Amino acid sequence: MIGLPDVELAAQRIRPHCHVTPVMTSVTIDELAGCRVFFKCDHLQKAGAFKSRGAVNAVFAHALEALQNGVCTHSSGNHGAALARAAGLRQIPSFIVVPESANPLKKEAIAHYGGQLITCDNSLAARATRLEEVRLQTGAVEVPPFDDPLIIAGQGTAGLELMVQVPDLDSMMVPVGGGGLLAGVILAANARVEVYGAEPEKADDAHRSLRTGVRVMEHQPDTLCDGLLTTLGEMNFEIIKGGAEDILLVSEAQIIIAMELIWRYLKQLVEPSSAVVLAAIMAHRETFVGKKIGVVLTGGNVDYRNLPFS
Amino acid sequence: MIGLPDVELAAQRIRPHCHVTPVMTSVTIDELAGCRVFFKCDHLQKAGAFKSRGAVNAVFAHALEALQNGVCTHSSGNHGAALARAAGLRQIPSFIVVPESANPLKKEAIAHYGGQLITCDNSLAARATRLEEVRLQTGAVEVPPFDDPLIIAGQGTAGLELMVQVPDLDSMMVPVGGGGLLAGVILAANARVEVYGAEPEKADDAHRSLRTGVRVMEHQPDTLCDGLLTTLGEMNFEIIKGGAEDILLVSEAQIIIAMELIWRYLKQLVEPSSAVVLAAIMAHRETFVGKKIGVVLTGGNVDYRNLPFS
Repeated sequence: MIGLPDVELAAQRIRPHCHVTPVMTSVTIDELAGCRVFFKCDHLQKAGAFKSRGAVNAVFAHALEALQNGVCTHSSGNHGAALARAAGLRQIPSFIVVPESANPLKKEAIAHYGGQLITCDNSLAARATRLEEVRLQTGAVEVPPFDDPLIIAGQGTAGLELMVQVPDLDSMMVPVGGGGLLAGVILAANARVEVYGAEPEKADDAHRSLRTGVRVMEHQPDTLCDGLLTTLGEMNFEIIKGGAEDILLVSEAQIIIAMELIWRYLKQLVEPSSAVVLAAIMAHRETFVGKKIGVVLTGGNVDYRNLPFS
Repeated sequence: MIGLPDVELAAQRIRPHCHVTPVMTSVTIDELAGCRVFFKCDHLQKAGAFKSRGAVNAVFAHALEALQNGVCTHSSGNHGAALARAAGLRQIPSFIVVPESANPLKKEAIAHYGGQLITCDNSLAARATRLEEVRLQTGAVEVPPFDDPLIIAGQGTAGLELMVQVPDLDSMMVPVGGGGLLAGVILAANARVEVYGAEPEKADDAHRSLRTGVRVMEHQPDTLCDGLLTTLGEMNFEIIKGGAEDILLVSEAQIIIAMELIWRYLKQLVEPSSAVVLAAIMAHRETFVGKKIGVVLTGGNVDYRNLPFS
């Protein structure tokens, strides 16, 4: 099992290639939420999302000889862009399988970083099938989006930085899609800070998995949060079961309100997936009142031409 | 005449009540612009705009007894919100005359900070008339939006901070409305860094004033940049004549493109007035190629429900 030392090693490995992102606060949001919220701005991370942490950690952990045919993955966008950028840093090709319905800005970002886009149908099964074809054709090494020790350790560096930037946090909370970030932050916290996940009601597989103790695999997500559509990874679930305080659910309406608050008072362009954490804090006010909570704004690759609150 | 020592005094005076705002950069924007652009994020300033610098400096420079009837001003929004906030810090009332057409978010911000909103017709003449009525009725002290030594010195603190944060700048560039920020930054630069203004073609009074040497007063602005509608102040013009390298003009289309670049690559919600500086750098590429330029993102009170690039 991986642990805090893996996250600390990842932090050293990614340092030359990733930002230590800033932490922002808003007096008005704190008043509205009834607690103090510290927003770790990973939408300002390289390639516009925390996903650069895991992707850089994975790509730089391998020997270059092992990567001569490049890397491949499937992604709804941010992991794909992050992997394309990381591959570019090592001057190897990248092959990114993306569902047709993916946010156009995320697809453009993958191409911008030199990734080869391969589109597929929108189901998780179609993604996996297409990726396996690509892997066999190209000989590229697969870098999974979340169910992987190097990815988990890499994402955990966001939590490690946040605990240094705000040393006396009561809690940390992050969005849950495949669970890479949540698992990584749990390892980083190492039981010194309680860690919550936040998830859309309409993509609640992680919540149900934690409640039942069995990883939910059948899943028909229907949420604005295009970064949170996947089901929980196996390794991720083991870490989350052992270390997550809870996984809180929020409605789509709560997500939209929280996203607008972040836009309006932090002046930060975050995507809907990033807003679930503030939505969860506000929806579970009694749990957090008076506390200091660190949250991760996970990505800024929002299609601002098509806003939920216009 | 005021000078650098006034800006330095203002910096001390505002320190407890204003942020030292961060500086952001984007590799992609630098590639597109052909130079290195350092964005001073005053849209993250208190009340969402650099205007808090001048307003706090003015309100805290006066003895409290002189302010017992409060303060008043006219404003298209950001100065009004900044003054309302500054007045609140000293627990005195504020009366803000705002044109009916003002951005609704800016009007909401004034009310949020406890300012009393007084609407008037949209002309500059109507603003002045209504303000004089309010001043006589209330006995409030007028804090002008730009044509005032305390306001100019306060706004100049943005330039002072920027030169500390990026010590080897070739140039600084700021938007020009009434000229408070440009005049203040010229004083802060104190001839150590060349200083440019940027202005919409469709609100080009400052450009024409600098070209002819005579302050242009007749003016029918027609621009998206709701923060840049006023004509140049008298004191501001004297300082700008003596110290501005040039005032560069940009089209509305160039402003919209620049605003979208800032949204997309810096992930910062800035208002159109803030985008004129990047637009000017890109429109006058030959002047800035290879240089290091510090610019001020002046405000983030954008009506994101009504975007120019949707």
